[in-house]
Amino acid sequence: MNTGRSLPFPQEEYGVRLETVRAAMSDSGLDVLAITDPCNIFYLSGYDAWSFYVDQALLVPLAGDPVWVGREMDHRAAIETTWLHPDQLVAYPDSLVQSFERHPMEFVSDEIIRRGWLPSLIGLELDGYFFSPRARDVLASQLAGKAQMVDASGIVRWIRSVKSPAELSYISEAARIVEGAMNRAIELVRPGARQSEVVAEVYREQIRGVAGTGGQYTSTPPLMPSGSRTAAPHLSWTDEILQDGQPVTIELVASRLRYHAPLARTVFLGRPSTKYRQTAESAVQILTETIGYVKPGVTCDEVARFWDERAARRGIVKSSRLGYSFGIAYPPTFGERTLSVRRGDSTILQENMTLHLIPGIWEEDWGLTISESILITPEGAKPVCSVPRRLITKP
Amino acid sequence: MNTGRSLPFPQEEYGVRLETVRAAMSDSGLDVLAITDPCNIFYLSGYDAWSFYVDQALLVPLAGDPVWVGREMDHRAAIETTWLHPDQLVAYPDSLVQSFERHPMEFVSDEIIRRGWLPSLIGLELDGYFFSPRARDVLASQLAGKAQMVDASGIVRWIRSVKSPAELSYISEAARIVEGAMNRAIELVRPGARQSEVVAEVYREQIRGVAGTGGQYTSTPPLMPSGSRTAAPHLSWTDEILQDGQPVTIELVASRLRYHAPLARTVFLGRPSTKYRQTAESAVQILTETIGYVKPGVTCDEVARFWDERAARRGIVKSSRLGYSFGIAYPPTFGERTLSVRRGDSTILQENMTLHLIPGIWEEDWGLTISESILITPEGAKPVCSVPRRLITKP
Repeated sequence: MNTGRSLPFPQEEYGVRLETVRAAMSDSGLDVLAITDPCNIFYLSGYDAWSFYVDQALLVPLAGDPVWVGREMDHRAAIETTWLHPDQLVAYPDSLVQSFERHPMEFVSDEIIRRGWLPSLIGLELDGYFFSPRARDVLASQLAGKAQMVDASGIVRWIRSVKSPAELSYISEAARIVEGAMNRAIELVRPGARQSEVVAEVYREQIRGVAGTGGQYTSTPPLMPSGSRTAAPHLSWTDEILQDGQPVTIELVASRLRYHAPLARTVFLGRPSTKYRQTAESAVQILTETIGYVKPGVTCDEVARFWDERAARRGIVKSSRLGYSFGIAYPPTFGERTLSVRRGDSTILQENMTLHLIPGIWEEDWGLTISESILITPEGAKPVCSVPRRLITKP
Repeated sequence: MNTGRSLPFPQEEYGVRLETVRAAMSDSGLDVLAITDPCNIFYLSGYDAWSFYVDQALLVPLAGDPVWVGREMDHRAAIETTWLHPDQLVAYPDSLVQSFERHPMEFVSDEIIRRGWLPSLIGLELDGYFFSPRARDVLASQLAGKAQMVDASGIVRWIRSVKSPAELSYISEAARIVEGAMNRAIELVRPGARQSEVVAEVYREQIRGVAGTGGQYTSTPPLMPSGSRTAAPHLSWTDEILQDGQPVTIELVASRLRYHAPLARTVFLGRPSTKYRQTAESAVQILTETIGYVKPGVTCDEVARFWDERAARRGIVKSSRLGYSFGIAYPPTFGERTLSVRRGDSTILQENMTLHLIPGIWEEDWGLTISESILITPEGAKPVCSVPRRLITKP
């Protein structure tokens, strides 16, 4: 039954992950961790399907294998993609899906009762995208008086922030793919090109991949604002024709077995103003210096101050964070939502963390974004992509 | 400042939508509706950016214009894409983003206080994807004793279920794009083709669109399970080579200015078994009869029974719902999460509703999915796409 033929990691690696999570559960006094973040479910069980638009959970007790609970039609996907024994895969009927009267968390709470996991302290991911207030209310009401529930949003996320060699090899594959897609975008972005046609080719490269190693769907589509829209980093393309005299920001990510690698570049069509060009040169220079500064043992706060001080000297003020951790992703983000490279974040950087440093500059009616994804090694930070780190001007 | 140049609808249409929502708020006794579903925010304000991975809200009071609250770096996107006056666009500092200590809902509650909207009954979308239990807790704690809060998840969603002529024209454009992408997929799916390479071309078609009318990013990537993986509808492609003797299910959606049109077809490479072929013929026949049965005034329950009875006669049993409403979408789903075509759903179908009827059959180790998106007209249901409704066999 359980072929596990799609597993991207050896069984031992899942074992290590589970033990690490259990140690953290134990430290927090948790008996059960109810995981609802699809990234965390994938990390621990291998489960990988586009089913997170309905409620699902991976229930992790302190002892014994985890239990996957999902929708009936996704039971087969759990068989195909997880390492779990079929007894650990439990499916709820479709009648619970997207109903205003019933809820899948009724089934989840029944499963917790059936497994004899009560009374207990249950950790929930209260800060997730796919665990709604209603889901929590249903769970709390069904288990009232039998279980206590606390927020445990950070447990698996923080453990994921340090990557294994096998994880880094997927990130490296994703990096090769995003390089190819970025180079294709840079090639095609020119005055007279229709934005949607450029992005169509970029999407194609993201999935074709490199030499038979294809990409998977990404957490985030290509974002490609141009002209004054570059001031708004989260706008995407239109059907309009690119014009001479415009900046075009290309923010891409590629995915290899759910491991992502992000990269952003701005291309200027024609001759930028002196101020624009100088800002770009400064931003690149400071980014390069900052990459040189990052090493295991420094804190996010220190990196942010390092950047801020150099930026201030060159007249650049940036109010948004400089970077964040990345890795496994499903929509809507490739960020891991743990550390942020900004003042006040005391996270100590460690070997095998992966960060996206994105000192985007977004002014009133123009923007400029040149980023790098870096891996922290004992020797310092190493960019995972190799696309020239500069403002690209065309022709 | 507020150019509104990207608005996909005339101002009057937004006015009508807002009045309809206010009437529903009034019926529920709400003073304020705090909208956090990006589809609903787009529907009422036009706001369209890939920023829903951080907290944001559209606050709708019973009188006066709505207030958009979002992240500082997305303020410019709100200026670019909404019809709201700049005074109604309020941005919170980046330091609140993805912090374990602070939360954007602290800012949202301050804004509610600042606007003088207290005491009040506030409707929240407790069943949404991008409004977490923690967000609700912060809001509730900040406004404790000043506001009461109730679930209002359904209000805007149900209003969206009936489409205007302008909305239908975008759905029609999306339908042309998804037809093109589906035809391309059918053309490329053959023994010897690499799955990721086929999907790369499909993605390209989804964005290139048709005759200068490009597609936008979709809520859902192309799903293309093959072989025994067709038993699992939410699995996607791999790098494997398609083989003779395999079914390949292609489930696609295209997006035009956030309006989606979904479509699924199964292609069989080689000769299917008699049972497979007969099941496909039955599924298509019953789907065609069901489309003929649908008209304004019938209920979802009646449509489901109509399908079930005919299916049972032909030995087909399907435990999952037959369909759902579609329209505006962001990840993770193009379904509107209102009506479900299944037994017990008493929703009365109305003119200008759009439904995806997807009688997918998912057995132990094979699957088969042939769907239609339909528009309900006074004369009955009209498919919005025109791709041959049958099992496609190749060569």
